[in-house]
Amino acid sequence: MMNNEKILLAHGSGGKLMHELIERLFQNKFANEILDELNDSAIIDIEYSNYNNSYLCFTTDSYVVNPIFFPGGDIGKLAVCGTLNDLAVTGARPFYISCGFIVEEGLDYEILERITESMYQVVKREGVEIVTGDTKVVEKNSADKIFINTSGIGFKNGQVNFSKKRIIPGDKIIINGSIGEHGIAILTARGEFNLKNEIISDCATLTSLIKKILHRSKNIKFMRDPTRGGLATTLNEIVNQMDFGISIREEDIPIKEEVRSICELLGFDPLYIANEGKVVIVVSSEDAEIILQEMRKDPLGKDSQIIGEIIDNPKQKVIMQTKVQGSRIVDMLVGDQLPRIC
Amino acid sequence: MMNNEKILLAHGSGGKLMHELIERLFQNKFANEILDELNDSAIIDIEYSNYNNSYLCFTTDSYVVNPIFFPGGDIGKLAVCGTLNDLAVTGARPFYISCGFIVEEGLDYEILERITESMYQVVKREGVEIVTGDTKVVEKNSADKIFINTSGIGFKNGQVNFSKKRIIPGDKIIINGSIGEHGIAILTARGEFNLKNEIISDCATLTSLIKKILHRSKNIKFMRDPTRGGLATTLNEIVNQMDFGISIREEDIPIKEEVRSICELLGFDPLYIANEGKVVIVVSSEDAEIILQEMRKDPLGKDSQIIGEIIDNPKQKVIMQTKVQGSRIVDMLVGDQLPRIC
Repeated sequence: MMNNEKILLAHGSGGKLMHELIERLFQNKFANEILDELNDSAIIDIEYSNYNNSYLCFTTDSYVVNPIFFPGGDIGKLAVCGTLNDLAVTGARPFYISCGFIVEEGLDYEILERITESMYQVVKREGVEIVTGDTKVVEKNSADKIFINTSGIGFKNGQVNFSKKRIIPGDKIIINGSIGEHGIAILTARGEFNLKNEIISDCATLTSLIKKILHRSKNIKFMRDPTRGGLATTLNEIVNQMDFGISIREEDIPIKEEVRSICELLGFDPLYIANEGKVVIVVSSEDAEIILQEMRKDPLGKDSQIIGEIIDNPKQKVIMQTKVQGSRIVDMLVGDQLPRIC
Repeated sequence: MMNNEKILLAHGSGGKLMHELIERLFQNKFANEILDELNDSAIIDIEYSNYNNSYLCFTTDSYVVNPIFFPGGDIGKLAVCGTLNDLAVTGARPFYISCGFIVEEGLDYEILERITESMYQVVKREGVEIVTGDTKVVEKNSADKIFINTSGIGFKNGQVNFSKKRIIPGDKIIINGSIGEHGIAILTARGEFNLKNEIISDCATLTSLIKKILHRSKNIKFMRDPTRGGLATTLNEIVNQMDFGISIREEDIPIKEEVRSICELLGFDPLYIANEGKVVIVVSSEDAEIILQEMRKDPLGKDSQIIGEIIDNPKQKVIMQTKVQGSRIVDMLVGDQLPRIC
């Protein structure tokens, strides 16, 4: 296949062209012993001793981000990072990834190649493998360029026990850096607002950062990555159906000046803007400072902050102490601030 | 949410409406201990004794079938059956399914509900669980109604060893029934050809049938489900890069009269038409009859046939002995006979 060729419906037919595409692009790029077998399912030997006493973790996400290339990443990098992060915040070490493409007929082959390359860069760096996949092609205008599903498998040591049930008032809330960059990067990349600033998406894998802090404390009680719906939604998910609330301090929430000014300009609340390289951590009060210092040593955690704490609040609300000495309730995202952000 | 409501972009936003959708539809329908935790990854305890000496199997497929409802099934049933079958033909017992929806803004809620219900019917009957999921909503005309990714995890006993390397000349090829029904059902459901016959898709789970025959013989050497690209493509995949060929007899290949006549009318070769409840089995010559009889006892195998055998052919071709005493080479599907068939 030449680089100026287009993806045709036949590339999703199950026949010759599909086999050629798989061989030349995916097998070539993602080659590993498991994928190379080309079985209907990847077959994974789980009889490693280090899996003893461990839990299998399994996650899935479909990515429909628009545009597919943006400052700081593309749909391929986003898909692999997102799935690895969903495993990491569960306390699991990611091992295996699946990859399902839905491609619009007529997409440039070169685009698929670039996306595949950026997926490869992440899996290579993270030491994980894409072990099974699927490609469908739909007619022009039946999908927008390309959608990617990545599912992931990881293993979690039985001693890692994240549970909202362990959370008590006084526990601290930490975030590993500034919020809103992914969402604003996507928004500006769309060109709708004719904004000159180039905000770079924070799209990144959190596995290494999380691994480090797991070694430093057994009192990390919960983690979640504040993606769609932003920090506000993640905090609400933490208090949801629980007997406690969360109090955060606006002035402690890291946010870059460019992000803040674009949000002000467009009337967005950065608390609701998606992140793709951030993690919210609930940790016991006594271990919070240790974890904070450990996080700050990591490039992905250098701007880490304790942004608030768990409070005894029967109404299960998230309250923000604002810079102007007042407080407001921070609800879950209502409506759709930014569609197709991931 | 009322039944006459539409899916909105906000249902994919990560916020309130998405949480409501997940709770009312997916959690309600797919409820199980693992899913109910609503973790970023499903957490699965693998320390069951019966997983000892076993292999983890992992598969993914995206479904883009058009129309989404067709005689014999819908996109939801197809997705779950297809993923369970990919595990089953690897020799694995399926356990866990993930489910990623990409929904076009404006889809009737009732449609999503019907699709969810039919997924539920399959997982309930098969004793598997949907343990993790994801929902994205894209703008009108950015996707065609709904696409579904299902990934699946199963466990394979270490003693089950399907490998093309075990195949030798003389081994028999068995199929569990008549070919081409899924593809033709989809085609007629599209209404493009104004055909009156209603062909029912063979969409079904093969897990029970395969389990039975695995108990009867250790000499089953390979299995694959002939979906996209049809029987011809699957047979070519079996001989691909191997030192043997396959000879099949046209008169032994089961095919329903309605399917045959529509294919003749439209100029399709049924060998290339997709199936969704069929499996091609390669078994040693001496065990072929035992397996055939066992298969015929199962509702999904009552029309099973030995359709040919492995031959010593350095050119690695699939040859069909035709009804008119001649023979022809059966190549892999070239081009796209029927797009969006699954």
